[in-house]
Amino acid sequence: MELTHALQQIQPSYIREILRDAQAPGVISLAGGLPDGDHFPIALMEKSLASLAQNPALFQYGQTAGYGPLLDYFRSQFKLPEHHESLVCTGSQQALDLIARAYVNPSDKVVMEAPSYLGALQVFGLAQANIVSVSQQADGPNLAELEACFAEQSPKLFYAVPDFHNPTGVTWSLEVRQKVAQLCQQYKVTLIEDVPYRELRFTGEMLPLVSSFCPDQALVLRSYSKIATPGMRMGVVSGKSEWIAPLVKVKQSADLHSSIPMQAVLLDLITHPDFPSHIEKLRVLYQERYLSFAEQLQAKLPQGCHFNPVEGGMFVWLTLPECDDFALAKAALTNKVAVVPSSVFYKKGERITPGLRLNFTNATAEELVSAVERLVDVIKQECKTA
Amino acid sequence: MELTHALQQIQPSYIREILRDAQAPGVISLAGGLPDGDHFPIALMEKSLASLAQNPALFQYGQTAGYGPLLDYFRSQFKLPEHHESLVCTGSQQALDLIARAYVNPSDKVVMEAPSYLGALQVFGLAQANIVSVSQQADGPNLAELEACFAEQSPKLFYAVPDFHNPTGVTWSLEVRQKVAQLCQQYKVTLIEDVPYRELRFTGEMLPLVSSFCPDQALVLRSYSKIATPGMRMGVVSGKSEWIAPLVKVKQSADLHSSIPMQAVLLDLITHPDFPSHIEKLRVLYQERYLSFAEQLQAKLPQGCHFNPVEGGMFVWLTLPECDDFALAKAALTNKVAVVPSSVFYKKGERITPGLRLNFTNATAEELVSAVERLVDVIKQECKTA
Repeated sequence: MELTHALQQIQPSYIREILRDAQAPGVISLAGGLPDGDHFPIALMEKSLASLAQNPALFQYGQTAGYGPLLDYFRSQFKLPEHHESLVCTGSQQALDLIARAYVNPSDKVVMEAPSYLGALQVFGLAQANIVSVSQQADGPNLAELEACFAEQSPKLFYAVPDFHNPTGVTWSLEVRQKVAQLCQQYKVTLIEDVPYRELRFTGEMLPLVSSFCPDQALVLRSYSKIATPGMRMGVVSGKSEWIAPLVKVKQSADLHSSIPMQAVLLDLITHPDFPSHIEKLRVLYQERYLSFAEQLQAKLPQGCHFNPVEGGMFVWLTLPECDDFALAKAALTNKVAVVPSSVFYKKGERITPGLRLNFTNATAEELVSAVERLVDVIKQECKTA
Repeated sequence: MELTHALQQIQPSYIREILRDAQAPGVISLAGGLPDGDHFPIALMEKSLASLAQNPALFQYGQTAGYGPLLDYFRSQFKLPEHHESLVCTGSQQALDLIARAYVNPSDKVVMEAPSYLGALQVFGLAQANIVSVSQQADGPNLAELEACFAEQSPKLFYAVPDFHNPTGVTWSLEVRQKVAQLCQQYKVTLIEDVPYRELRFTGEMLPLVSSFCPDQALVLRSYSKIATPGMRMGVVSGKSEWIAPLVKVKQSADLHSSIPMQAVLLDLITHPDFPSHIEKLRVLYQERYLSFAEQLQAKLPQGCHFNPVEGGMFVWLTLPECDDFALAKAALTNKVAVVPSSVFYKKGERITPGLRLNFTNATAEELVSAVERLVDVIKQECKTA
């Protein structure tokens, strides 16, 4: 059967495709965006999971927008104004997909920082959007470029990951946040603020959401994959009711609604009195791993390799001297360390900076030491280092 | 924000929209396709739910295609040949949506029996398919019409619900199954065989899947919403590997994968030694309800109303004398019985038979008696009965 024109353009996700190889015995994976499976808050969920059987009503069909008590909690927790609503999704990935399906016609312009989250490139690619890239600096997007793009190209959406960006780890400064919000309002561009890593800040001060400066010009995607568990597939999108309603309509077609038992367990978990200390433990754990990983990289990488320090999240973005980043990633896998080549984070045909995205949250401190050694060997072989 | 051209054409699901009203206190709902919530196999799931906390690996990201042991079970249970595969979906609704997104370009022709499953009308509407209707008879689609349509219009897909059709309850005869399979092969039309009600046969003999006569020309959608529980959102699509792979690619964008804990619980449930007797109990329960419901309708309906007996499933399709079916459904809701007007099961602009879809699985025998009384009152008021 012939594929749709849209799907013919889409590459399968490199990361999803190598997930199996990356999980092979002996391989240390820095490839996925996987939280540490040994530190899931399972103990905080145990009672809730066991009690599901006492609540058969959770197993009936439910409202498309989500489980009522969870939506009520989101309203209060996110301090949503009266005219805003939330929609529970099968991961925030689904929220992004619903937005594209509700609002993006083929050729509509969607702005993203380059490099970009692979899942967003796929979603907007499948929607046949015209993806417009703006370059990213150490404190967020290049504002002059962004304004010129908004003014000259009238894009519909600006998709952004302002906290511990995937793949680069960049966090937007307060000034950038305020300016981007102002530009979105001025040029009537809808901000899609994706904040899956926001709670994983292990140093520095938490900054306001960009959307807090333009609440009626934004849709916010929150994920529970990094602070709760990804296997449950729980995310939520919030914004003006008139912008959420069309997403609900698409979700009716897409899957009717997300798993209600999982939504009930999520609510029990995130309202558990010990949940904040679970997040705090994650922050400490990931900070320890990051610091030792960064130290190892600093000590062992050959000249011409570079990375900026990060204040949280899950990734280090390593730029490399001239090399074939795919060949490098392949050689690394052979040498039993899985990494993601930078090319996959750029739209097709875009000029790339050769490099690697390195995840530091899913390997132990000891594994991270070995991973750096294996990786450095391969970089020395594959890159034209000085 | 302006909606996509595709979404602008789509009506929200009448059934999803009235779900809240239909569940209001005092209202007897014959509207949804809801299984009886008092007979969910929760007891068979209790141990499995409680044991999830002992298996943290289930809470990590997983493969897009689904939880390995569940896929293995499907391979053996469905007797899939070597070159076939399955993909676990968030309900079989998602499988249908993925098929449309992978294979249906705007204007591609998709054949359906009229009236049709509302969720399929929505999915193919959102894909901007050209929906071609063939009329339905007591034993399945009108074969002459279907062949003419295949021969003259070269459709890409034929979407069908051959067991206890939604909304009509019609089951295809063996001869129709064989002939449709032959036509699909002859004209290279892919059969989408949707069988959510298949196990709910309470009389007569189970007939082979249509796809068993054309396995390489079909995709089969199975649902666990009717025999397990709908709130978990579990369905599966099976077919040739080369046809499943593109669905996996779309699902990567759509939600990465479906909830793994729910997949593990489903596997425990459907392999539980008492699961077959749970299904048998459901069949007995639904048969009792159907028989008493049919008897009540037969006894009390005014002249000019008609329904065909059904051998299983969840619905009775009541055709009515001349009336405004929407006004009738609204009046029924005021009279505290929720039903679905026949119009919603036809594509826009199509000539409809005025009628109602009546669900008999989610109300008790006593409620069904009252529901018929309330409904008959309203029909006498709203329809031009003799």
